[in-house]
Amino acid sequence: MEVEVKAARAKAAARKMAILDEDVKNLALSYMSDALIKEMPKILEANKKDVLEAEKKNIKASLIDRLRLDEKRIEAMAKGLREISALPDPVGNIEEMWKRPNGLQIGKMRVPIGVIGIIYESRPNVTADAAGLCLKSGNAVILRGGSDAINSNIAISSVLAKAAYEAGIPEGAIQLIENTDREEVNRMMKLNGLIDLIIPRGGATLIKSVIENSTVPVIETGVGNCHIFVDETAKLDMAKDIIVNAKVQRPGVCNAVETVLIHKAIAKGFLPTLVETLTSLGVEVRGCKTTKQICPAVKEATEEDWATEYLDLILAVKVVEDINEALDHIEKYSTGHSESIITEDYENAMTFLKAVDSAAVYVNASTRFTDGGEFGFGAEIGISTQKIHARGPMGLKELTTYKYVILGSGQIRK
Amino acid sequence: MEVEVKAARAKAAARKMAILDEDVKNLALSYMSDALIKEMPKILEANKKDVLEAEKKNIKASLIDRLRLDEKRIEAMAKGLREISALPDPVGNIEEMWKRPNGLQIGKMRVPIGVIGIIYESRPNVTADAAGLCLKSGNAVILRGGSDAINSNIAISSVLAKAAYEAGIPEGAIQLIENTDREEVNRMMKLNGLIDLIIPRGGATLIKSVIENSTVPVIETGVGNCHIFVDETAKLDMAKDIIVNAKVQRPGVCNAVETVLIHKAIAKGFLPTLVETLTSLGVEVRGCKTTKQICPAVKEATEEDWATEYLDLILAVKVVEDINEALDHIEKYSTGHSESIITEDYENAMTFLKAVDSAAVYVNASTRFTDGGEFGFGAEIGISTQKIHARGPMGLKELTTYKYVILGSGQIRK
Repeated sequence: MEVEVKAARAKAAARKMAILDEDVKNLALSYMSDALIKEMPKILEANKKDVLEAEKKNIKASLIDRLRLDEKRIEAMAKGLREISALPDPVGNIEEMWKRPNGLQIGKMRVPIGVIGIIYESRPNVTADAAGLCLKSGNAVILRGGSDAINSNIAISSVLAKAAYEAGIPEGAIQLIENTDREEVNRMMKLNGLIDLIIPRGGATLIKSVIENSTVPVIETGVGNCHIFVDETAKLDMAKDIIVNAKVQRPGVCNAVETVLIHKAIAKGFLPTLVETLTSLGVEVRGCKTTKQICPAVKEATEEDWATEYLDLILAVKVVEDINEALDHIEKYSTGHSESIITEDYENAMTFLKAVDSAAVYVNASTRFTDGGEFGFGAEIGISTQKIHARGPMGLKELTTYKYVILGSGQIRK
Repeated sequence: MEVEVKAARAKAAARKMAILDEDVKNLALSYMSDALIKEMPKILEANKKDVLEAEKKNIKASLIDRLRLDEKRIEAMAKGLREISALPDPVGNIEEMWKRPNGLQIGKMRVPIGVIGIIYESRPNVTADAAGLCLKSGNAVILRGGSDAINSNIAISSVLAKAAYEAGIPEGAIQLIENTDREEVNRMMKLNGLIDLIIPRGGATLIKSVIENSTVPVIETGVGNCHIFVDETAKLDMAKDIIVNAKVQRPGVCNAVETVLIHKAIAKGFLPTLVETLTSLGVEVRGCKTTKQICPAVKEATEEDWATEYLDLILAVKVVEDINEALDHIEKYSTGHSESIITEDYENAMTFLKAVDSAAVYVNASTRFTDGGEFGFGAEIGISTQKIHARGPMGLKELTTYKYVILGSGQIRK
């Protein structure tokens, strides 16, 4: 019953948090930041246990790397909390206010969502990021990390909860579910009335399972099968630089490009240089039939390639008839994350912006900019790929909702 | 497989609808309006079948009344569609646009949600309202009404779909699920990737079942256990007028008041007149112990009364110590719909606005104003009582989402 007890406590805390002054929240964030540094030995000790356990279980190296903390990573977490404290607090802002013919003034006020559940995997830094963002936006948070990081998460969350409490944040504002049984998280996802929103952070399997099992509203995050379309009129140097940046600068993230579509009129002139540059940077190119005719050395792409988020130094390339074929391909295979057109044609730029139904649609820029920091939000809790509530990078504002406040002078309805 | 086939058709239609000009949508709405009038005999004929069937099944009179159509009701549906055509189209508006230090221009563009599923009960007018609002906001709609109204719904939806198609709206924009088996709607609620949002409209049981079974995102609508708190400093005439209006003007709707909380300092002076007025208007008052001491004729309220949305001429009344007890009571029993404070005290007004976590929070006005028309939205598809995406009356804007459009000149991420 851990999750039910903690969710009830979170709900009580959320009511108090909704009316906290920003000063208190900022003080808490700075206490939390300091506490991470002060309690570093304790956190590293706990993390060591997790890493040893993971090594015993022969978990693969990349996962152990995500799990492992060191001084630098804890310092980065502490710095992140200070940065969140410096961001403007959206809560209480009245975004619009209008007057009705009967004299009622109706305003839309930003308010916290309430209790947010975060379900994540083995990266312990999510514990600090999520706690900081939820606290600043006035929400109570229930953290449910993966079992591999349980000791690290217990250490980090208890340090943060204690520091927040000392700054005047109500008890129950930051809580971790310590029982990592599947049953516990399944019950967590059914706590409508106590939990207002669940955000899963992790791989496709985790996200799918949350969507299938949760009766609490969910925001789907993350999977990015992103496309770049190089139009007939593109500046080819710009196109090459953008593709290289979007594929190579950090291939393991959701806003990296996975498929490039190339207008047939420029394919012969552009593809050889592009493929050469990518290959020299370690990228494996998988091309359609036409691509293979132009660059015989590339591997042939299969149907599966068009649908794959590689998260790796692999790029699928397809030559298309025109912008319409590009739009059809994107419609069919995109996960709704980020797509870009490289073009000097005004009409095609406008068509692409209008027709592509993704969270972020670019003209002449790298898809790698789909990020809370790059958009100017300061920080993000994830990138939404669904249509409801929030789309794209979710910052503090996306962790709030609104209520209508109505100022009357005795109005009754006729 | 009806629902899968229709959902796939809706998804194809939605892509085309997202880029339709407003003119085409408005033309379709006027064709649809005209067609309802022209095909009135056919619709009335179909409705007659439903009503006869319902009478055979001994369905209760109030439900048969909701089901029954006549000339006036069809005219009202037709008028509703014309009114929707006159509303401004939110799609394509860029609400904010900002420049990043690297020169990227980032804008938030309003876009349709995509495919919206509406699951409703026996009121056939929902068929026309929902079709009109979804069409104007650029969404394809899948309608799934109750089995009692199936003949009416088939008649109305086929008339509307045909008229819309003739105006240039793609096929599949307006579709009804004709198979009313439970299995069909259960599969509908799992069509993630084809349906983007489901809005249930109806009683608490329907809504609960959709929340429990849907893996597609849901917006919870409707249940309103609304409160009015009469503070110590309230103008008592204003308080009485507002309470009477909120209870009596239309008791069967979700924004009617169900519980009145009264500050103890004014209870003795205010309650006798209030109870007398309400009783003379046919309202049954159920009071707490203190209320009963002051007005011995009222029935005693039980714990269940505080939690009940009567939707009837019944009102629960409780005398409270102060605003804090009122806030605690509201926190405990409110469904997050609408609450109002009647006060002349500035600080208490501000506290109430800040602390009450409901979709609409009023000072000195009737809760009956929580309505898309009264808020100035022109029309509504329902009143959301959840925190995610939209809260309170949902008009055309709430049937849209946004995407980021980013205008670059070759930017890559460093």
